[in-house]
Amino acid sequence: MLRLRLASAFALATVALCATSAHADPGMFTFNNFPSAKVGEKYGFTPSQSWLDRVRLAAVKVGNGCSGGFVSQEGLVITNHHCARSCVEHLSTKEKDLMATGFVAADRAAEKKCPQLEVTQLIEMTDVTDKIAKAVEGKTGAELAAAQRAAQAALEKECSTAADIKCNVVTLYQGGRYELQKNKRYADVRLVLAPEAAIAFFGGDPDNYEFPRYDVDMTLLRAYENDKPAATAIYFPLAKTGPAEDELTFAVGTPGVTQRGLTLAQLELQRDVLLPQLVAHLAEKRGILREYARRGAEPQRTAEQVLFGVENLLKRASGQYRTLIRTTLLEEKRKDEAQFRSKADDEAAKAALDQVADVVRKQESLHRRFAILEGVQGITGFEGELFSYARKLVRAAEERPKPNAERLAEYSDTGFVATERQILDTIPIARELEVERLAWSLSKIREWLSPDDPVVRALFGKEQPEEVAKKLVTGTKLADPAVRAALLKGGKAAIDASNDPMIRFVVLADPYSRAARKEYDSNVTAPLRRLHAQIATARFKLEGTSVPPDATGTLRLSYGAVKGWMEDGKQVPAFTNIKGLYERATGNEPFKLPAGWLAAKNALDPNAHMNVAIALDTVGGSSGSPIINKQAQLVALNFDGNKYGTGGTFGNIEALNRSVGVDAAALRAAIGTVYKAPHILREMDAPQPGG
Amino acid sequence: MLRLRLASAFALATVALCATSAHADPGMFTFNNFPSAKVGEKYGFTPSQSWLDRVRLAAVKVGNGCSGGFVSQEGLVITNHHCARSCVEHLSTKEKDLMATGFVAADRAAEKKCPQLEVTQLIEMTDVTDKIAKAVEGKTGAELAAAQRAAQAALEKECSTAADIKCNVVTLYQGGRYELQKNKRYADVRLVLAPEAAIAFFGGDPDNYEFPRYDVDMTLLRAYENDKPAATAIYFPLAKTGPAEDELTFAVGTPGVTQRGLTLAQLELQRDVLLPQLVAHLAEKRGILREYARRGAEPQRTAEQVLFGVENLLKRASGQYRTLIRTTLLEEKRKDEAQFRSKADDEAAKAALDQVADVVRKQESLHRRFAILEGVQGITGFEGELFSYARKLVRAAEERPKPNAERLAEYSDTGFVATERQILDTIPIARELEVERLAWSLSKIREWLSPDDPVVRALFGKEQPEEVAKKLVTGTKLADPAVRAALLKGGKAAIDASNDPMIRFVVLADPYSRAARKEYDSNVTAPLRRLHAQIATARFKLEGTSVPPDATGTLRLSYGAVKGWMEDGKQVPAFTNIKGLYERATGNEPFKLPAGWLAAKNALDPNAHMNVAIALDTVGGSSGSPIINKQAQLVALNFDGNKYGTGGTFGNIEALNRSVGVDAAALRAAIGTVYKAPHILREMDAPQPGG
Repeated sequence: MLRLRLASAFALATVALCATSAHADPGMFTFNNFPSAKVGEKYGFTPSQSWLDRVRLAAVKVGNGCSGGFVSQEGLVITNHHCARSCVEHLSTKEKDLMATGFVAADRAAEKKCPQLEVTQLIEMTDVTDKIAKAVEGKTGAELAAAQRAAQAALEKECSTAADIKCNVVTLYQGGRYELQKNKRYADVRLVLAPEAAIAFFGGDPDNYEFPRYDVDMTLLRAYENDKPAATAIYFPLAKTGPAEDELTFAVGTPGVTQRGLTLAQLELQRDVLLPQLVAHLAEKRGILREYARRGAEPQRTAEQVLFGVENLLKRASGQYRTLIRTTLLEEKRKDEAQFRSKADDEAAKAALDQVADVVRKQESLHRRFAILEGVQGITGFEGELFSYARKLVRAAEERPKPNAERLAEYSDTGFVATERQILDTIPIARELEVERLAWSLSKIREWLSPDDPVVRALFGKEQPEEVAKKLVTGTKLADPAVRAALLKGGKAAIDASNDPMIRFVVLADPYSRAARKEYDSNVTAPLRRLHAQIATARFKLEGTSVPPDATGTLRLSYGAVKGWMEDGKQVPAFTNIKGLYERATGNEPFKLPAGWLAAKNALDPNAHMNVAIALDTVGGSSGSPIINKQAQLVALNFDGNKYGTGGTFGNIEALNRSVGVDAAALRAAIGTVYKAPHILREMDAPQPGG
Repeated sequence: MLRLRLASAFALATVALCATSAHADPGMFTFNNFPSAKVGEKYGFTPSQSWLDRVRLAAVKVGNGCSGGFVSQEGLVITNHHCARSCVEHLSTKEKDLMATGFVAADRAAEKKCPQLEVTQLIEMTDVTDKIAKAVEGKTGAELAAAQRAAQAALEKECSTAADIKCNVVTLYQGGRYELQKNKRYADVRLVLAPEAAIAFFGGDPDNYEFPRYDVDMTLLRAYENDKPAATAIYFPLAKTGPAEDELTFAVGTPGVTQRGLTLAQLELQRDVLLPQLVAHLAEKRGILREYARRGAEPQRTAEQVLFGVENLLKRASGQYRTLIRTTLLEEKRKDEAQFRSKADDEAAKAALDQVADVVRKQESLHRRFAILEGVQGITGFEGELFSYARKLVRAAEERPKPNAERLAEYSDTGFVATERQILDTIPIARELEVERLAWSLSKIREWLSPDDPVVRALFGKEQPEEVAKKLVTGTKLADPAVRAALLKGGKAAIDASNDPMIRFVVLADPYSRAARKEYDSNVTAPLRRLHAQIATARFKLEGTSVPPDATGTLRLSYGAVKGWMEDGKQVPAFTNIKGLYERATGNEPFKLPAGWLAAKNALDPNAHMNVAIALDTVGGSSGSPIINKQAQLVALNFDGNKYGTGGTFGNIEALNRSVGVDAAALRAAIGTVYKAPHILREMDAPQPGG
């Protein structure tokens, strides 16, 4: 659940540390280097090029961080409920909360437009490695970067021949290969069917990243062209039933970020320092928010989203930790590095492997200050919406006048699109919660850095974190979007002239935060990027395209069989069924069934499969991935992974990593019986045009 | 701070897993096997037997869990403020809170008796290994245990010739040696001087286990005999100044529990599973309690003690984790085991080392259920005072009628003394806090065991943890000590007849908890005890008394030099001074100075040393240990360790482990200048009778 959005927030600061792919079975493959022969040997089914092409064209990327697929010839798209959540919330009114009630369009006319949601389809890939290489030939440093950017921009422009065509040059294998990807955009997307949030995320945090699981995390959208349903001849027909145990399946989608090239030293740092520190930090924050929510109905309502995000990150980090502790991942990494050392003849690349370990030692001592002052990787720096507005405003005033290339990334011309939207958003501010969040983060800054640290002395003086937070939150005017807009427009002069206490506080705090970031970037991020590029080049020379490149949000295909796994000496089964859902329901959150599901109980087959666990390699960003069988029929809809799945960032351990999907049987039961939309099922079941 | 009391609570469940001592420098030595020659070689001072005897006789054990020493010839005893806390609280009244105001007896008549506090002095040790061996010769199993108990009881009885003599047979080297220890008891102990809690624990949780530090964690007591100050010719004179950098010092005291014989596999389990799990659990609990305390003044007051305990445990566990991650401890353990394997000819003992690793795998899978249902090692099981009363009552009814040997330890004739006192205590109950604590623990039980677990289904039914907790806490009558007394007296019949909801809840829950405990004991605790005994025997054959036995609360002597240490590439200095104290004071908790200290500022030497860090091997139970120089003068008073010191449980790493003490200069400044008690300083400075 929420595997992409939070996952990418988490990865933000580490993505720069990404490295070349180490070996990882089965892998998330690009469509032009899918190991069909290997799959054939193992499972007796060898995907043909035409099979691969059809699968690619039936798949879509949903928004910026999810996956999905066409499921009818009239533009119907399936994805997760949590991937379309912003649309469902947007279409809700005070009178009708679609998150609570769900939504079914009785006919096409009732389908409602989702603002800001588009789906894209990958229609063509061209290898442009040579063109890029030629463009940068003989160049170094800033000149090289500029030449590369220019070449990419030219290729993209040349390719984007129509308004509904979007082209990107994507970097694969850390620069081992460049590919021009041509996508068809569907910018008019409408809501067709959304279950109630209570069944989409049944079990809430307790069941998140767990199995057995009982969720219908599904939403149906429709792509329109010229105000008519898009004609989508190539799609995934919904299978009559879900997959059988041990059956081969495929997941197609756009996994977000993996870091499978982290070295052993980096993984050990994750295991020994970064993840335990993150888990403890998030656990305390969870305690703060849970107890705050107990103050009453309004605190509970306002804290819910923040708590949800913290619990999701916490489960994710705990799962990643568990993966590093309980699987053979580190052992395999050790073997892989030994093999690389013995095979590669690039001595500098081998030396780079040792130098990474030196940088890791620096990272260990610098990370804490960087994390707590900049608030990265799930660590809370200064916290709350109001502080965040102030920091963005202060930094924008400082950064925006600089030349584009010299700005912090989130204030560059491309980065600032999102930053500006955040500055000007109209989310209502819960001041009481803001005080608690900021007070707690300030206390953590004092705790992590010690009361003697110059930044602590400068910010607190002799005051307590709680007093400081209260003064800032009650005194600031930044809850008003108009005030923020004026400050943004007024730039440095407006900031200098502002006597808003939150602005003044940030002006005081920010030099310390920026210094910590700079110190970290120049001692850790930059050297790691350089060293990993060296290693990646040597690896690509050795391995070519036999090992898939790290996931970067581009379309991929994985394969694997339906299987449970062993946990603490016990077998976790591969399936749950509808009977289990009703047994688990308590009538209380987060195990409370919506009325429609209670009413439909007797009409449903209790033995029909509900959710399914499959040894498919997916990560955040794979949410909404169609899971298909050999006939390219939709047998399940990926929506989560088990706890080892969260460790997929670092590598895939086939014996333990599991993707979790909504079984086709549950999709049919939900659409046809619970939501009484047989017309939608009929559309999905219509005979395929191609046969 | 609070190093012993909470330390032993923490160790309760693991003490059974204690094992033979592996190598650890410098070590906590018994007085009859102190490595004087080694100390002489390294530091040029060789403690003589008479020096050792005098030091032993000047030292005392304070209460059941602290250390101290005589500091005048008239029975004056120094120990930590936190070691005498119960006395200071007991002597407080509604009108005069001595924790807040401190206490100075103007003269002998004003010294107030501390109830339930006694100090003991170790006056004689006799090796009785042969006698015990002879008593158990040819016996096995229960017969052996009974014979040993009988032999020990006989020896102790024969030795205890007077009311003020207390004898114990203590087990050293895991049974490698038995020693009869004869102690002199001082049962009449009175309060002479206690600082304000605010200076005794200045810096509170933020500074706990940290350095630089600025605490005067000291209290002066006086031992009386026949209503007169005890004549104590042998004592530690207070040095004129504290120790110099690099100076050799000694700590004498009664360290509580070490587990230095844990095998590599056991330490890895601590590092990878137990400690990270404990830290995350305590961090969340800390968040709950911190935020609860923010509800208002009364919640803050009632939550304070619980929060304090949680934060102390959390710091301790984090420090232990850090020790395992950042020091060479595991590496040294690996070497030590390899050496043992190559030297020992006892093949069964070597095999036992491997078998421990097998048991550890079982422990990993069983520990979670055991910990969360029994609430051990800092993990919260069912929580709160009211639940705890109910469980003790239900178990007492079941256990007390059984033969003594078959009961759970805390209901045996000796164990029940403390249990009964806990059942009948008169602590006021904060119901609102009780609801929050129990609700949170119930939610953790559901989270750890999953909503499908039989115990979760049985206890919650379809209700929410919060509802269950509220019903139990508001419905129970167990807040009334008289109700508890009646139930205790009524035994099984009274429990069966009770319709108190908390009692009924425990009757429902307890079989699951007991089953988890039994499963853990028989699969983990018992096999580990057996295997460690085997290894210990083989080790004692090899090493004899050259390696000190694990600490078990008996009197020990360690040695080490005054030294800072390196942390994140920076040197932490060995000393703080009085100037630093005033700089750190903010006027706000926990950095708020008492009025007396503010008033005395100009009268104090700003450069006088405040606290000192020394490479002495101490652990929980060493609180209040006199730190002395070669002349056996008190140069500092041990009250804490640095974060690596918390890892002293597992081993001592001389480069990083530090004991933290109040410098003699600070003791003089406090007693003479701040508390204006020059008469006490004169008593301490009186010429020694022996010269």
